[in-house]
Parts: sequence; C-alpha cells; structure tokens
Amino acid sequence: MTAAHYLAREGTKTVVFERQLRIGGGMPGGGMLFNRIVVQEEGKRLLDEFNVTTKEYGNGYYIADSLETTSTICSKAIKAGARIFNSISVEDVMIREGDRVTGLVLNWSAVPLAGLHVDPLTMRAKVVIDATGHASEICQIVVNKLGAKLRTKAGRVIGEKPMWAEVGEREIIENTQEVYPGLIVAGMAANAVFGAPRMGPIFGGMLLSGERAAEVALEILPRLKVS
Amino acid sequence: MTAAHYLAREGTKTVVFERQLRIGGGMPGGGMLFNRIVVQEEGKRLLDEFNVTTKEYGNGYYIADSLETTSTICSKAIKAGARIFNSISVEDVMIREGDRVTGLVLNWSAVPLAGLHVDPLTMRAKVVIDATGHASEICQIVVNKLGAKLRTKAGRVIGEKPMWAEVGEREIIENTQEVYPGLIVAGMAANAVFGAPRMGPIFGGMLLSGERAAEVALEILPRLKVS
Amino acid sequence: MTAAHYLAREGTKTVVFERQLRIGGGMPGGGMLFNRIVVQEEGKRLLDEFNVTTKEYGNGYYIADSLETTSTICSKAIKAGARIFNSISVEDVMIREGDRVTGLVLNWSAVPLAGLHVDPLTMRAKVVIDATGHASEICQIVVNKLGAKLRTKAGRVIGEKPMWAEVGEREIIENTQEVYPGLIVAGMAANAVFGAPRMGPIFGGMLLSGERAAEVALEILPRLKVS
Amino acid sequence: MTAAHYLAREGTKTVVFERQLRIGGGMPGGGMLFNRIVVQEEGKRLLDEFNVTTKEYGNGYYIADSLETTSTICSKAIKAGARIFNSISVEDVMIREGDRVTGLVLNWSAVPLAGLHVDPLTMRAKVVIDATGHASEICQIVVNKLGAKLRTKAGRVIGEKPMWAEVGEREIIENTQEVYPGLIVAGMAANAVFGAPRMGPIFGGMLLSGERAAEVALEILPRLKVS
Amino acid sequence: MTAAHYLAREGTKTVVFERQLRIGGGMPGGGMLFNRIVVQEEGKRLLDEFNVTTKEYGNGYYIADSLETTSTICSKAIKAGARIFNSISVEDVMIREGDRVTGLVLNWSAVPLAGLHVDPLTMRAKVVIDATGHASEICQIVVNKLGAKLRTKAGRVIGEKPMWAEVGEREIIENTQEVYPGLIVAGMAANAVFGAPRMGPIFGGMLLSGERAAEVALEILPRLKVS
Amino acid sequence: MTAAHYLAREGTKTVVFERQLRIGGGMPGGGMLFNRIVVQEEGKRLLDEFNVTTKEYGNGYYIADSLETTSTICSKAIKAGARIFNSISVEDVMIREGDRVTGLVLNWSAVPLAGLHVDPLTMRAKVVIDATGHASEICQIVVNKLGAKLRTKAGRVIGEKPMWAEVGEREIIENTQEVYPGLIVAGMAANAVFGAPRMGPIFGGMLLSGERAAEVALEILPRLKVS
Amino acid sequence: MTAAHYLAREGTKTVVFERQLRIGGGMPGGGMLFNRIVVQEEGKRLLDEFNVTTKEYGNGYYIADSLETTSTICSKAIKAGARIFNSISVEDVMIREGDRVTGLVLNWSAVPLAGLHVDPLTMRAKVVIDATGHASEICQIVVNKLGAKLRTKAGRVIGEKPMWAEVGEREIIENTQEVYPGLIVAGMAANAVFGAPRMGPIFGGMLLSGERAAEVALEILPRLKVS
Amino acid sequence: MTAAHYLAREGTKTVVFERQLRIGGGMPGGGMLFNRIVVQEEGKRLLDEFNVTTKEYGNGYYIADSLETTSTICSKAIKAGARIFNSISVEDVMIREGDRVTGLVLNWSAVPLAGLHVDPLTMRAKVVIDATGHASEICQIVVNKLGAKLRTKAGRVIGEKPMWAEVGEREIIENTQEVYPGLIVAGMAANAVFGAPRMGPIFGGMLLSGERAAEVALEILPRLKVS
Repeated sequence: MTAAHYLAREGTKTVVFERQLRIGGGMPGGGMLFNRIVVQEEGKRLLDEFNVTTKEYGNGYYIADSLETTSTICSKAIKAGARIFNSISVEDVMIREGDRVTGLVLNWSAVPLAGLHVDPLTMRAKVVIDATGHASEICQIVVNKLGAKLRTKAGRVIGEKPMWAEVGEREIIENTQEVYPGLIVAGMAANAVFGAPRMGPIFGGMLLSGERAAEVALEILPRLKVS
Repeated sequence: MTAAHYLAREGTKTVVFERQLRIGGGMPGGGMLFNRIVVQEEGKRLLDEFNVTTKEYGNGYYIADSLETTSTICSKAIKAGARIFNSISVEDVMIREGDRVTGLVLNWSAVPLAGLHVDPLTMRAKVVIDATGHASEICQIVVNKLGAKLRTKAGRVIGEKPMWAEVGEREIIENTQEVYPGLIVAGMAANAVFGAPRMGPIFGGMLLSGERAAEVALEILPRLKVS
Repeated sequence: MTAAHYLAREGTKTVVFERQLRIGGGMPGGGMLFNRIVVQEEGKRLLDEFNVTTKEYGNGYYIADSLETTSTICSKAIKAGARIFNSISVEDVMIREGDRVTGLVLNWSAVPLAGLHVDPLTMRAKVVIDATGHASEICQIVVNKLGAKLRTKAGRVIGEKPMWAEVGEREIIENTQEVYPGLIVAGMAANAVFGAPRMGPIFGGMLLSGERAAEVALEILPRLKVS
Repeated sequence: MTAAHYLAREGTKTVVFERQLRIGGGMPGGGMLFNRIVVQEEGKRLLDEFNVTTKEYGNGYYIADSLETTSTICSKAIKAGARIFNSISVEDVMIREGDRVTGLVLNWSAVPLAGLHVDPLTMRAKVVIDATGHASEICQIVVNKLGAKLRTKAGRVIGEKPMWAEVGEREIIENTQEVYPGLIVAGMAANAVFGAPRMGPIFGGMLLSGERAAEVALEILPRLKVS
Repeated sequence: MTAAHYLAREGTKTVVFERQLRIGGGMPGGGMLFNRIVVQEEGKRLLDEFNVTTKEYGNGYYIADSLETTSTICSKAIKAGARIFNSISVEDVMIREGDRVTGLVLNWSAVPLAGLHVDPLTMRAKVVIDATGHASEICQIVVNKLGAKLRTKAGRVIGEKPMWAEVGEREIIENTQEVYPGLIVAGMAANAVFGAPRMGPIFGGMLLSGERAAEVALEILPRLKVS
Repeated sequence: MTAAHYLAREGTKTVVFERQLRIGGGMPGGGMLFNRIVVQEEGKRLLDEFNVTTKEYGNGYYIADSLETTSTICSKAIKAGARIFNSISVEDVMIREGDRVTGLVLNWSAVPLAGLHVDPLTMRAKVVIDATGHASEICQIVVNKLGAKLRTKAGRVIGEKPMWAEVGEREIIENTQEVYPGLIVAGMAANAVFGAPRMGPIFGGMLLSGERAAEVALEILPRLKVS
Repeated sequence: MTAAHYLAREGTKTVVFERQLRIGGGMPGGGMLFNRIVVQEEGKRLLDEFNVTTKEYGNGYYIADSLETTSTICSKAIKAGARIFNSISVEDVMIREGDRVTGLVLNWSAVPLAGLHVDPLTMRAKVVIDATGHASEICQIVVNKLGAKLRTKAGRVIGEKPMWAEVGEREIIENTQEVYPGLIVAGMAANAVFGAPRMGPIFGGMLLSGERAAEVALEILPRLKVS
Repeated sequence: MTAAHYLAREGTKTVVFERQLRIGGGMPGGGMLFNRIVVQEEGKRLLDEFNVTTKEYGNGYYIADSLETTSTICSKAIKAGARIFNSISVEDVMIREGDRVTGLVLNWSAVPLAGLHVDPLTMRAKVVIDATGHASEICQIVVNKLGAKLRTKAGRVIGEKPMWAEVGEREIIENTQEVYPGLIVAGMAANAVFGAPRMGPIFGGMLLSGERAAEVALEILPRLKVS
C-alpha cells in the first residue's frame, strides 16, 4: 500500500489486490498481538510523511500504533487515487511475448476457501509488484509454472534466512527490484526471494521497501510506453 | 469506531475492542464483496466530516469506497485519542452493586479459536457500548447470565426484523440508547435488540447511530461522576 | 425450475437463485446415487412436454435419467427467458407495508462457506417462490424473523411427515399455494410447510408442483399490477 | 461432454464419469461466479450447433449463459445416447498386455469424501478420454503408477504454463491427441500435459477440444476392432 | 444381530441395516478399548448356544472376547439366512394407513458423511426393530416427525437413567416390546425409550434383549398375515 | 487437586480424574496467557502451606507463578497419597438405592475425541466431587439423566452470574457443599450450580473451595461407614 | 487374519493388531459398497475350508457375502487361538542386533486420531507380518527409518502397478515372502512392495496370500529357535 | 526442564518455552495412556535427587508416577529460579555474526492454531537448548533456513532409528552436545539429530540428557562471557 500511495500520487493507475477482507497483512496484529510496531529513524521519516504519530523508545527506535499506521496509509493511498480490492486472490499470472508478465489471474478469495470449482478472471497490468510476504507467491508462480529464471543468484526463490533484524532491514531496499520482466518484488517477499534474513517486528524496512518499489515501477513504466 | 471518534474528541478515555484482526466489521466487504457502500444525505454529512470521498448516485443516495471509509474513520478515531485493541473477544461483563454493568471480561480471540482453556482478564468501564451487530452479544449476556430486563418492550433482545432499509435506517437512531444501566446499544445491535428491521447495504444509519451513541454516553458520564 | 419455465414462457420476468453451483437440488443424484428418477402418468405428461425420454416400468410408473431431466428442464427454462443465478444464497427477505414479502436479501454462497463476514445485496420481486425443499427456509424466515402467521393450520411451518409416497404426491399439488402475502411455496417445501408426508424417489409431484406454482403466480401477478 | 455427444451421435457406446454431483466442471460457475462464458468465432460455431444462444460482444467474441451452455450440451449428449454417471471418481486405470490402458477403476466419490475404506469396481473401455482439467489425473496415474512415458517432449505431464488465452486456445486443438496407448487427453488437461498455456475464461477451445477428442477416438476405435 | 439370527432361523426374511462398515456397534471396542466383555449366567447361556468361549470370572460373571462374540454371532446370523447391509443409514420411516410403520427410508452412510445432497430409497418391512442404542433413532423419528405416542408412560422417548447395571440388565427384557404399531425396540434403545438405567460393560442383557425381540416379532408376524 | 491433597493427607483413598493430559484446568494458562495468578490474604495462606512463592502486589493481593502453583499442588497431592488419572473423561454417574450417586462411568478422553464408539468402564466411589468448572458437568448429568433435584433454590443448576470477583470469592466457600446425596460441588462449579457470580483471575477462592470440599467429604464419609 | 488362523492352528502364539475398531480392512465394504466379494477356484478352496457359503457366477468365479467371509474367518482365527487387538496402531518397529525386526511399537489408534501426544508401548515378536495393504506401512518404516534394503529389485518399496487382476492375483503368492530379516509381507502390501499390479475386487489372492504368509512364518520360526 | 533446574540452580538466567499449555511433553501420558514411567538405576538416581517416589520393578528397572515426576521437576525447576512460559511456539531462530544462534523468534501457540496472521517477537539467548523431541525443530530450522551444517556425520538432522531402548538410552548422553554454535540438543531430539535409535517408554535417558545438557551449557557460557 505504501508503494500504491506513491505510485497513485504520481498519477499512475494503481490497483492493489488483497487476499483478506483485512488490509495491511500482518501489520494490524503488531508483535504477538500487542498492536504496536517499531521503526528506526528512516522508517519514522515515512510515518511522519503519512502523519502517523510516533513515540521515541530510545536508541533511534520509535513506536507507533499498528492500526493507526495501517488505516492511515490505506486511507491516504485511496485518497491519492489507488484502487484497493480486498478479498481477491491471485491464482496465476498472465504472460505475452517473451513470457513477460503482463497481468494477473484473479478470483474471489471466498471461492477456494469455500472449496468451490470456479474459473478466474484476468486483469492486464504493465507492472506487477509481488508483496505477498514470506511466501513470495507470484515469484513462485513464475518459477514453477513458467520454469523461468529470476534475477537472483540461484535463478529461483532462495528463501528467507533466520531473523537478523539489522541486516534484513538494510538489505530489503536493494532487494526491492525488478526480479523478472514486468515483476517487481517488495516487502518481506524481496528478502525471501534474494535469501536475505527475516526482519522481525521492526517494520521500517517494509515501508521503505514500498517507497523503493514505487520508484522502480516509475523507472520501468516510461520505457514501456516508448516501446 | 464512529462513536469512539466522537467520544475521544471530547476528551473521554475511549477503548474499542474488536474481535477480528480486521477493523470495521462487515463494512470492508461492502455488499456481496463489491467494496462500495451507499449512504443517504444524512450519512453523507458524516462522511464529509471525516473527509471521505462520496459520489452522487441519484435520489439522495451517495456511494463511497468501503475501505476508504473504514480506514479513514479508524485513522481519525485513533488520532482523536481512542485506543483500539483488535483480536480481543468479550467473554462476559463485569457487574457491581445493583447488577450495573461496570466493565468487560476479555480474552484473546485466538484462545477460543485455538480451542484452548485459558482464563480471561477484566477491564473496568463507566459505560459499555454494545456494537456487536446482529448478534448483540453483550445484551444477550446481560439477559442470559444476569436474568436482567432490558429497556425494550419484551424486556429481552427481540431480534431484528427482515430487511426494510428505509424503516431500519430511521428507527436505528432512536434505538441507540442506554438499554440497561451502564450499557448503550448501537449499530445493527440497536435494531436487533428493539426488534426493528434490518438495514441492508445502506450504511448511513450505522454511522449516525455511532454519532448518537457518543451523545448518549456523554449524557450519562457526568451523572456518574457526580454520584 | 419447472415453475420458472412456465412463468418465463408467459413472458413473466423470472429469476431463479440456486445456492449450489449445481442446479436441480437433489434430483441429479437420483435415489441413493443411482441416477434414475421415477414418475407416474401425470409426471410423465410433463416430461413428455419437456421432451425427456421415459421408459415404462410397469403399474403406471416410468423411469427417466435424472441428469437428462435436470439439464433439459434447465436448458428449456433459460431458453424460455428465465434467468438462473447459481452459487447465490438467500439470507433474508425484504418486506414493505403490511409486512408483505417484496424481495430477497442475497449473498454469494461462497461467503458463508468461507466463514467471511460480508454484507448482502437485495433484489425486489413481486412474488417469491420458496422451493428450498425439506427446510422450507424462506417460510422459516417469515415465521422466525417476522413472527408472522402462515396460511397453515398451525400458522407456522408444521414439518413434513414420514414417507408415504402416494399421499405425499397427491397432497403436494394442493399445498402449492400462496402461504403468505407475496410468498408461494412449492416442491418438498410445500409438504413440509403444511405437514404432509414426504414423497421419496418419485419425482412426479415435484414437477407438477412446479407447474402449479407457476399458475398460482400468474393469478397473483395481475392483481398486483392493478393495485 | 462435447466429445461424448459427438461420439454417441456416431453410434459409439459412450460413458462419462463425473466426480461431482454437478456436471460441467468449472463451467457452471462462469468467471469469478458471474455465470457467463466467452467464446470466439470458432467456439460460436459449436454453440450454434447445440442451439445455445450467444450475444456478440465485439472483436469476434461472443457471450453465452454458462448454465444454458452446460445444461444444453448435457441434455443433447444424453439424448444422443451417451451415458453420464455423476458422483463417481476414477481411482486408477486398468491395464492389459503391453500396459495398454483398457479400463478404469471407479468408486463412489462419497467413499473417499466420507473417509471410508471401501474397494472400487472396474469398467473396461476401448478408449479412455482424460478430461480432468488442470490436474490431468488419469495421465498422472499412468506416469506415476506405471512409470510409463507419455507422448510429450518430457515423456511425463509437463504442467500448464501461466495464462495466455490466445496461444492456449490455439494449441489445445493439436494437444488433443492419444497421449498414451488407449488414452486420449482433452480440454484443459491437454494443455497441462503438453505444457501449453492456460486459457482463462474463454471457453471456445474447451468445446473444440471436445469435438477433436471425438474425432481422435473415432480414428482409433476401428483399428482396435480389426486387431 | 442376535434377533436377526433367531428370526432367520425360523425362516423369517430378515434384513439388518448397519450404519458403519463395522458390525456390532460398540461391542468390538469392549470396555475402554480393552476388548473383553462380561456376561452373567443368563447371557452365558446364549454365548454357549453361539459356541463363543467364556471364562468364569467369579460371582456368576463370565468374560468373553468381544471380537469373537461379534464375529461369531454375525457369521451365524448370515449362515441362518439373515441379510446384513452395512454402511447404510436410516433417514426416515415409511408409513401407511393408521400411520403404522411399514418400512424404512435408507441412504448410503457415505452420502451424509460426504455432505452430499442425494435422495434416499425405501424398503418395505412388516416389522421394524429399533436397535440403534442410546439414541433410539427410529423411535425418535416416530415421535418427532409423526407426533405419535409411544407405549411408554410419557408417550415419548423418556431417555436412559444413569448406570445401574443390575437394574438395567433386569428391566431390558421387559422393555423389549412393540413400542408402536410395527416398531419393536431392543438393546440399549429399549432402556432409553422406557427410561430404565444404563447397563455398562455387562453385555448379557443386550443378547437376551435380541432373543426377546425375535420372540416379539414372531408373535406379531402371523397376526399381520391374517389381516 | 487441593481437595485431593487434604483428603489423601487424612488417609482417605482419593482418586482424581482429569479430562486433559494437562492437570490444573485453566490455571496453567493464567490470565489471557500471562502465566501468573492473583490471590488474596486467605488464598496466600494456602499457597504458603504448599510452599508456593508469592509476591505482594498491594491492597492485600499476591501474585504467584501459575505453573509453580499447579505443579507444586499436584506434586504434593500425589506425595500425600492421591491418585491422579489424566486423559480420562466422565461420561455418566453410577447410582444405587435411592438414586444415590455411588460412582462414575469413565472412558479415555481420546475415545470421543477420535469419534470412536467404545463403551466405558465404571468405578465405585463413596463420595464424588464435581470440580468440572463453569460446566458443572456431573451436576448436569444428575439433573438431566436422573431428573433429580439438587439442593439449590431452583432444584437445578442455576448457572453462574457475570463476573463480580469479590462476591464470587466470598460465596464460593458456602456453595462448596453436598449438593445431592453422594455429590459435593467445588470450585467454579459450586458458583455455577448455585447461581453465584464468576470469579475471574483471582484464584484464591478456588483453593479455599478445594480445602472446604475436603472438609465436607471428611464429614460425610464416617456417616457412610456407620450405615 | 487368514495367516493368523493357520499359524494359531499350528500352535504358534499369534497376535493381530488392527488399526480400526472394524476387522477385515476393506473387505467388509465389498466393491463400491455392494457387500459381495468375488473369488476364483483357488480362493473358493479356502472359503470352503472356512465353511463360507459361495455361489457360482460363471467362468470359474464365485461370489460370497463380504461380511460372512470376514466374520467367519475372524471367528475361526480366534477359536484357533489367535489374539486380535483392534484399535491399535503400529507406530514403529523394534530392532536388535543386525537391525533385525524384533517387535512392534504400538499405540491406541485413538491417540493420534485425538491429536494427543502420548508415548507408545512395545511388544516383542519373532516374526512380523506386514498386511497393511496398499500403504505397506511397516516396510516403509524399515526403509525410511532404518535406511535398510528390502529384498526387492529396487531395495525399497516399489509401489503397486495399476489394476490387472489376473496378473496381480498370480504374482501375490510369490511376493508373499520374508522381505527383510524378521518381516514377512502379505496381502496387497506384497504386491505394493514388489511393484506388481493391483488386484481389484477379486479377493482370492488375498486369502491365498494369508495362507502363504503362515507357511513362510512356520519355515522361519524353527530356525530362530535353534539359533 | 531437568536441564533448566540444574542451570537455574547454578544461578544461570534460564527460560523454558513450552508450546502446549501442558508441561512435560509426552511424559504426563506415560505409555499408551497408562500414566507410569520406567527408569533404570541411573535414572533413579535423578528421581531420588528430585525426591520422586519410585518402586522397584526388577532387573534394575524402577516405576514412577508420570504426573508426580513431571509436576515435581517443574515445581523444583521454578523454585530453583527457572522461568517457564507455556503456550509459546518457536517460529524461527535469531542469528548474528558468523550465523551463530543468538536467540529465538517466538509467538503465542494460539496464533497459528487459530489460523491468524500475526508477527512474532524475539528474545536473545546466549545458549539455546533444542528439546523439541522427535521433530528436533530448532535444528531443522538451522539446517533448512540457514543451509548450515550441524556437527553430525551427515551435517544435517539424520533422523531417529527405530526403537532399541538399551542402545538409545546409552547413546543419548553422548548425543547431548552443542550441535551448532549456540545450539545444544537434548532429549529425544539428540538421538533424532545424530541418527541414534528411539528409546521407548524408559524415560531415564531423557532425564540424564537434561542433566548433561545443563553441564554442556555451563561449559559454554563462561567462554562467551570472556569474548
């Protein structure tokens, strides 16, 4: 949603699909159900931009309310023009010439939950951002169904390392990149795909990764319009 | 949450307990998963106050994005000072002299979902608002466990009538009241308790009921402080 | 669907809501999964009209393929102009002045199956036919949520008697009637509501009840147009 | 069922086993529960043959009612002489000399659903058509239990590629072939077995694949009778 | 099965329907999974007749192997001519003039276990024996669906009393009787229907009740043949 | 277990049946999974006797570790001579002359959990203590299966009132009594049976009730030996 | 059980562990719930020995009642001296010098079904017969936990081939052998371990395999006694 | 817990995380629900130290009450200063320089049981002891997520061998060691990791392994303090 906010603010047509009725993934639950999140200086800069209240905790760490953070970013992203569709699952990707990712194959999340056999619909997209967390589901589809190589050392999803918050937070920014033609990876999925450590309850890297994903998308989109 | 926003804005110490990780109850899902809501003129006034975008649909009806509505109200309620705890279930009420409701008995929602046998904790409250929807769970506890009479014609929860949106929207405001000493009922629970019709996907009455519940609470609280 | 076929053929705007993806209720499964159905002379007349093949079994009984019967009636009802929406559940009824039934409150069947909390949508209807089988769900809603009296001896749903095929088949036709203003009951629901015996694997009465329900609806509709 | 219709029309003894009570697989659910299907010119030719109503959508695409399509094809296939047994699952294949597929091992679908341990029965067949969709279950049994090589590049089930409707629709016809002695593959299973792209909610290829499977079967059957 | 054995031995056409794949109800599990049963002198007489090995335990009690007992009685009942159908559930009863029970409405047990909606088949019977244990299911159907009075003090199923083995064993013989026209009750169901105490792991009364039920049936059957 | 400790210490033959593998009911989970318990002065006296560490919290309240409390009491009760059988469920009671409770009908807890149909075994007991918490299961069996009157105002289980810790803690001692011949009720079950308020996370009353139950049993037992 | 009968008849101490409460595995369910089984001449010889009624069907095939077959063999095996423990699962094997199988690690089947964590008990055995059907569970334990080589071509469990009744029936006898020191494999497990075809509803090979397993065991046992 | 007791007694800050509400893993269930455990001379020495009653069984084996053993060790470990947190699951490990294990990633066990998506919290630890039984979960995380080599012959978790109580009991002591920097393995996990045989219901090795793990930890800790 952070990425969606920045993209929409630039006038890009932006759509977010969320599998749950709930937005924000694991963030509303905070850490072990205590609904607070922790960010560092860099993350605080983004929360300030969104006007989310933070409280200094010491050592360069700040605490915020996890529900205030999620709802405020969601509210601002929609206001900026992003469209968010909840309760929708990504079943597959759409490809075209050169096996480039050119869209998503979508279904109601209720359909598989209810054990129904119903066909999906499709949506074209110039750029897809995989922000599906630890599972990095869209990257997995590209590897498993296309047999394609990702731009990682192993050519495939390497899998996240155990938790090392400081390293994880640092590497997530550089891992937020176009990992396959038409597919950017962001958030925890970025570290999972490139084999970087897990981050833990410090959510600053998540927000910065969203900001970075928007930048990457904005670099790619004009090139597409030319060709 | 609407009630929480108005209460917190007046400087009242306000806490919301939400059973789900997700906030906003059924509102994020819109009508049949199409995530839009409909309000009338009166409801639009509230959405304008929260600065939620609405689009005229005709005949005095307005459409809004259900996620924008939920996230914006949540964001503003927390900013106004309300505390929201998600993933917490109400197991029981706390009573004192005269069987007045004086607090809630709470547990992690994960505990019953996981089938664990773990005791709850308690929280004192001067006024409790039952906004548990069709089930009106807190009122049911008062009737079933206390054997107490509510201020309805039948003395108990009458149960909502089938859908008649216009009547339901109208009656919800007057049904939003202190239904038992220390217990206000609001939202769909108000119509369920007083046997008024269900409202349907027109969410204006919900918001107005929240506003009204805050007014009722603000009338009751000073009286408590005196005694 | 039989009723839908006859109504649509008369130019009436007809919509069928089916909870399953599958149409035809219990008929496709035949008797104990042996996919044949049995009808008497009277039922055979209807199958002949639909051009469904029957084979004489003796004693005035005829056998038909349960899938041919269901698919052919469905195919012809749609051709005649009826609209069938599958995977949709009826959650409630809509009422207006005098508590007359004036529509249905609908949701995707996948929503409750998936355990989601999502609000329904509504559809107006001049006449509603309850063909929900043994459960007679719409009549139950009218009794339980409205507290209304049905036109049965007990004023409520009496419940089907044990199986007595001959009597059940005979009484179903007269039980197919307007049981509450705006609500016709047909098929097994008719016998359940009026306390007549269950019918068993002889499906002739089901088809004749559908035909009768269409006649009853056609009698009621012009009266509504006048008023 | 399309294949069954053409085979039965030629006087071939044809039996269809369907795991569900419902016939037509994913077609009755349309796309994301909106019960319409889309076909191109070529698919429309088949729907015209079955006398299914279509409406032009533009660009050579036509829309049809998914329930009308399923029920009409089912109705006509049975009328043409095909036998359809629903609620029956294929557990295994039967083999004879040279490990040729010569029949199916069947059980009530209710037996595994109910977690019962009950042995199956068998049915001989000159030609088996695997139309089990994405899972291509019968081909998987041949590969996994027989260790046999299919007539694909990899000798095994390659797995469907992500969605590319145009390519998928084109390749499905040539992938509809005898993939192992006595075993034809059709529908989505054909593309899954040969590693062609998924097709999406455009169902024309499905119907044409059924027509082609019938042609392939009719070529094989006389040769069997001679030997 | 004990009753079936005695009835079949007299040349009566006897059919047993067993819901489980397993025969013998709770007997194969013995007491708390220790697969032994206990009988008194009277029960030993029957086990001797079936040629089941018993070992004296003292005080007039004898121990037998629960699997030997079940399998031997089953083996002998079938040899005597009884037909046993396992995996079949009783859904309802069939009635005729005077609401006399004249048969059973049956379905595969797998059908409800699998959550399928499939209609049952029916079987005529001159006399039905309810040996469904604590639940006394057939008697419950007669009371709940027919609204009929049983020949008990309360006119309905009274429900078993807590365990008092000696009294329960004694009363079960006199409670084994025709409790409604066409319906005999036997085994634990007899004590449940008449409100006698539960018996516990002493299975002698069960066997004697089976013997008595056969006698009762043999008294009733000739009278039916006359009328 | 507290009762068992005191009874065993007096040389009484004492057996505890615990449904779970885990001992101590809800106590090991503390309040909302924070594994601490709170007791007042009176409860502290018992914890001191058991040599459980407590920390003063203020206002006459003391905190203890919930696992230390449970494991220490269990350890001491067994050392004192009590036998504890875990993973055993009470299915029913055993009665004798005058419907006096004279024992329990027991089964492995795994049997119903596994959905198996296996008969129970029985155990004679001079006095039974119902310490099954909110559900007061043994008292419910006496009321529902025997139709007997308990020594409460209503003659039946009245049901616990909402939480009022101070009152609940006070009344639990007097509610710990012989509620039916041969049956003492203790712990939360005592308040549930007599309709007293729930106690919450203050566990002192629980311990004192255990102590009181042992006293009541010691008063009853000698009288039994005489008669 | 057939093997148990022959072993016990020779005076060997024989114990059968059956995971279900029900004995006889898939045999009581017959073929697709029609409770009959089919045997050839050779199988009929065994059924005659057990005195099970058979009816000629033609072409050297005979039909028997599946319940009569199971219960009669069970009854006779116990009479011959075999001990059968039902509701017991094999969790692991016991080994000694040379990794020879020397016993079984057993638990109540109810324990894993109930999701409990409870340790097993062990039982020494000179020879173990794996008759666990398609899954050949004991052989799998030997391969997976011991890393041992079985006496098959692949050294491991090869897995059954698709159904070819004639070949499967023939090969099962030679596949019934000591597949690892101390471990004989019999019944469907024999064909699964050696990669022979599945047999289908013809149960003759099953019975003959049981007879053969007893012979193999009787050859091995004396050698053990010597060493 | 045995290790925790010895560590805490030496003044080490010791924390135990237990996934269940119940402490003691499989020990409270004894063998097949009979709640007794067996130990040899060496194990008896430890039980004597904990003052747990044992009874000689013969051949150097002693029997103890499984609940007395678990509760007494738990009680003494807490008294010695160890902190035990129950209902907490280990989701991951925390690493630092050189991929050394430096802590645990924890969550409420109720969170995954309830199917919630909630982030964990972390806890630093100088030394982690994996006592997760057969599954050796923490070692598995180190191998699977870090790709690290353990100090076993295979470099990975080898998996336990079938049961050979004498060998398993002997080898568990030497297998209790630091298997990876910062990670000690103890109890059944030690044998699973090093590929030693399973031990069965003789719990002496378990206790001795706990004692040994404490010694290993006490050797490692001072070295850490220096560096």
